[in-house]
Amino acid sequence: MRIAVCCTNTKVEPWLHGLRAALPGATVSLVDPEAAGFDPAAQADYAVVWSPPQAFIDSQHSLKAIFNIGAGVDALMKLKLPLGVPVIRLDDAGMSVQMAEYVCQAVIRHFREFEAHESDATQGRWTYRKSSHRAEFTIGVMGLGVLGSRVCQALAQFEYPVLGWSRSPKSLDGVQCFAGESGFKDFLAATRVLVCLLPLTPDTEGIMRRDTLSQLKPGGYVINVARGRHLVDDDLLALIDSGHLAGATLDVFRTEPLPATHPFCQHPKITVTPHMSARTLRDESIAQIAGKLRALDGGAAVSSLAGVVNLNRGY
Amino acid sequence: MRIAVCCTNTKVEPWLHGLRAALPGATVSLVDPEAAGFDPAAQADYAVVWSPPQAFIDSQHSLKAIFNIGAGVDALMKLKLPLGVPVIRLDDAGMSVQMAEYVCQAVIRHFREFEAHESDATQGRWTYRKSSHRAEFTIGVMGLGVLGSRVCQALAQFEYPVLGWSRSPKSLDGVQCFAGESGFKDFLAATRVLVCLLPLTPDTEGIMRRDTLSQLKPGGYVINVARGRHLVDDDLLALIDSGHLAGATLDVFRTEPLPATHPFCQHPKITVTPHMSARTLRDESIAQIAGKLRALDGGAAVSSLAGVVNLNRGY
Repeated sequence: MRIAVCCTNTKVEPWLHGLRAALPGATVSLVDPEAAGFDPAAQADYAVVWSPPQAFIDSQHSLKAIFNIGAGVDALMKLKLPLGVPVIRLDDAGMSVQMAEYVCQAVIRHFREFEAHESDATQGRWTYRKSSHRAEFTIGVMGLGVLGSRVCQALAQFEYPVLGWSRSPKSLDGVQCFAGESGFKDFLAATRVLVCLLPLTPDTEGIMRRDTLSQLKPGGYVINVARGRHLVDDDLLALIDSGHLAGATLDVFRTEPLPATHPFCQHPKITVTPHMSARTLRDESIAQIAGKLRALDGGAAVSSLAGVVNLNRGY
Repeated sequence: MRIAVCCTNTKVEPWLHGLRAALPGATVSLVDPEAAGFDPAAQADYAVVWSPPQAFIDSQHSLKAIFNIGAGVDALMKLKLPLGVPVIRLDDAGMSVQMAEYVCQAVIRHFREFEAHESDATQGRWTYRKSSHRAEFTIGVMGLGVLGSRVCQALAQFEYPVLGWSRSPKSLDGVQCFAGESGFKDFLAATRVLVCLLPLTPDTEGIMRRDTLSQLKPGGYVINVARGRHLVDDDLLALIDSGHLAGATLDVFRTEPLPATHPFCQHPKITVTPHMSARTLRDESIAQIAGKLRALDGGAAVSSLAGVVNLNRGY
């Protein structure tokens, strides 16, 4: 089994070493079409990639599958991919628990007013803040895949009413599910805290904009842990500044690193973090990809694997 | 049924109104032995109290039960109580979910280094912080009553290894349980984050002190959501400043309000909040106490009620 590894924007050596250790029978090569010594004739059976250049894809003619070392395949979907070659993205690998942590802490801090309480106590103020009613603090999660459904489950244990919205109808225990365009209006109208865990596709780009965000309940709050391009920055700012929205916690941005001069950075009602909500855990991810490579090479059907991307939907 | 309500340090009128509305057949009176017009001859069947003065207890000779409007009965246990009169404390009433929220957000913020990440992003720094290993981030919860066991369950869903310690042996799903003095050393040695949810009794006062806290794993962290007197303040400060402990999140203090001049207030590794981890939710609490009063008055046995205090143990 010949494996070509081509990654940008990430440290690639540990992936090479990890895959070699996990698959001692395989030939694992680093391929960089922009480097000196690149051999366009060298062909691999499988590619393991992160944001590869188009030239890498174009140089490979015998790929049986492409493995993406993250959950989001939006960078890959912008390329021209060979027809009929399955794309397999990372499936959980320790990410859903991190996502559940991130979203729960953001929701709890907002619901329980931790920032104000901490500042009170530090200054010797023992103010009593009347708590919001949990039953009215509905949380609406957009995107009900592996990450979204884990987040719903984690939130539900804190007894918040949880709503979910997805493109195609889903059913999750303890979650009021809405689907498709027809269900979107009702979902938004019932939501107080909106959590975005959607894949980024032409359909979902800019989904959080003035006309959608203004449908949230008064005092609405936005948590974006998907991609920066899901959100129209100026619309969020305008709705917070007008008082319709209470604030936001944002982990992803249209430009990353988020420039320190961006209005989000110093906004008193916006909390920003440096795209850390769910880090790829290298060891878990290598083990998962190696396991799938072994299965495919042993004759397993692609359809038996988790994380196969539907190229029509783009996720 | 005659009910005497005697509360200090809390707004009493809503409790009076609430109990009257819930128990239309009962006579619910505010009794304050220090107020003009106090009638020492007036006797009640039941008392509903929060930190009552000894004079109130001494004035009542026909009490069939005393209801405490909080979960902690340490203030009441300092009084001389009439023999044979059961004391019934609040049992959950919306507190355990709040406690689970508080502890989870404190643990998650510490484990995932949220403070540093937020400060990074605000300043346009996109630093990569290597995450700690979840499997090594053991959380030890002291006190496995209604609140403690709910906290354990909430932490376990974030896949932390959870340990529990209680006076008498308990068994909780997914929690490695230790008990009594003999189990305390092993519990401490295996714990990275120590959560205190114990009742305050002569046995537990000062339980978090130099010789116990120094047995925690290096980089240990302390979360106190029980009572300020469980912790020896100077010992915590010394162990943080020496580097053995990484920090603390504290909601309760020996003196409340915590004076703004206390070294906890400005300490960069200590987060303080104004005793808000689990607020008594008045409506839920009134409904619970009224339900128990109705049951007792209808002839139910005290032993059939939840929250009956064992006066030998003091909780």
